Amino acid sequence: VTVALINGQPGENVPAADRGLQYGDGLFETISCIDGRPRWLSQHLERLRRGLLRLGVPFSAFDALQAEIAALAGDQRRCLIKVIVTRGVATRRGYRPSGDETPTRIVSRHEWSEANGADTQFHLGRSEVVLGVNPALAGLKHLNRLEQVLAQQRCAGRGWHEVLMLSATGHLISGSMSNVFLVSAAELVTPDLSGCGVEGVMRQVVMHTATRSRIAVHVRTVLPEELQQASEIFITNVRLGVQPVTHYEGRALPSASIALALKERIDAAKP
Amino acid sequence: VTVALINGQPGENVPAADRGLQYGDGLFETISCIDGRPRWLSQHLERLRRGLLRLGVPFSAFDALQAEIAALAGDQRRCLIKVIVTRGVATRRGYRPSGDETPTRIVSRHEWSEANGADTQFHLGRSEVVLGVNPALAGLKHLNRLEQVLAQQRCAGRGWHEVLMLSATGHLISGSMSNVFLVSAAELVTPDLSGCGVEGVMRQVVMHTATRSRIAVHVRTVLPEELQQASEIFITNVRLGVQPVTHYEGRALPSASIALALKERIDAAKP
Repeated sequence: VTVALINGQPGENVPAADRGLQYGDGLFETISCIDGRPRWLSQHLERLRRGLLRLGVPFSAFDALQAEIAALAGDQRRCLIKVIVTRGVATRRGYRPSGDETPTRIVSRHEWSEANGADTQFHLGRSEVVLGVNPALAGLKHLNRLEQVLAQQRCAGRGWHEVLMLSATGHLISGSMSNVFLVSAAELVTPDLSGCGVEGVMRQVVMHTATRSRIAVHVRTVLPEELQQASEIFITNVRLGVQPVTHYEGRALPSASIALALKERIDAAKP
Repeated sequence: VTVALINGQPGENVPAADRGLQYGDGLFETISCIDGRPRWLSQHLERLRRGLLRLGVPFSAFDALQAEIAALAGDQRRCLIKVIVTRGVATRRGYRPSGDETPTRIVSRHEWSEANGADTQFHLGRSEVVLGVNPALAGLKHLNRLEQVLAQQRCAGRGWHEVLMLSATGHLISGSMSNVFLVSAAELVTPDLSGCGVEGVMRQVVMHTATRSRIAVHVRTVLPEELQQASEIFITNVRLGVQPVTHYEGRALPSASIALALKERIDAAKP
């Protein structure tokens, strides 16, 4: 059962004329909540704020948004809160915003089933669907997600828990719903996201935690061939946390020790 | 005033859980109607059918859709009908479709103000916002339109009627809401859309009409530099029809004769 607040009011519907539906003109956040408390909330809100600024959406109701997240998460042992902020109902036809739209905020609560434990298998594959390169959209968690939908749809039935995606220019970028890290010589490598991909909150937490643990992190262009040499691969998002990959395209990964050390340190911090 | 039918019922709202809003998981058509009659309807429906097939959306209510378009266009001298078909309300969390969603269809009527006449100026500019390359989405009129939104937003106030967009790889693709044709040595050139861009209904009509008029049409990779050499540039969509460009980035185009000849022939056909 989903519970939702739309512009602060209990409800399920939005106008079909909302630019979020018409054009995907908006952003979202998926927030993990434990014992009523949203984890990494300031990072989520900060990413949302930066994204809205880049899209030129004049949203200022952060206090209301935060209260709504708290209200929905309140009595839950464990849940996911999804926040969508769109530019709002179109006030005229066409792609160009008029500038006088009123942003729409949608806050909904979803079940968060137990994440895969570190002791279970996690199979990672690779999608043939690529990510188009566009610096104007890179990093944003925006509502244009057909690439991810197709990647997920086309790997159905393969038994993978997640699929990696390359950019149209052949570089490794991320999973369809996660960021990816490779371990090589006890250092972390994660793809540069200046052309495409989403700057995940958990990616940021991992990078910060690694640095504090004196593990070097290299953010750079990554070729898919490097996946074959990696001693360890892990993916990250706020739902799974740090998720060690046990098998990449069928190959068993020899190690998960750095992922597990980071996971332990992050879990202990309990933000 | 907008009038809309949602799954055949008068209404204005859709569930916020619709995948059209959540991910832009759907397609749209904008149909020009004159004297109650939708123009190029079979081409619109055929493109929609092909697109839904590519996205794996199991939509079959074409008869109902056609009746709804006719009902909304019925008593209007001149209007635009926008059709949106999404994969429907999400039946589970995440990008991957469950396969048991019921598609949502939204048919809405909008004012169609008089198109710019051929005797008025039409200024064309060029956007710095690029189109990401993705063969899986190329050609489709899907709901992921943030690139076009940003292109339109960022050229506000420049006095342009439309902006051209290049692919991330530097090729000319289209306008933000139109296709583009260049005239060179009395032959037509229009960009190949296998990497990005929308295969417009009016583009198809123009190509067909040109061929029947023994005007050669070359569909190929086009470099932006070719715009400087073109004797004529015109853009196409079903609202503007064939629209001669009088000025490209301030330069007056010397001719519009082929565009006007095609326009006359297409208008005379009155489909």
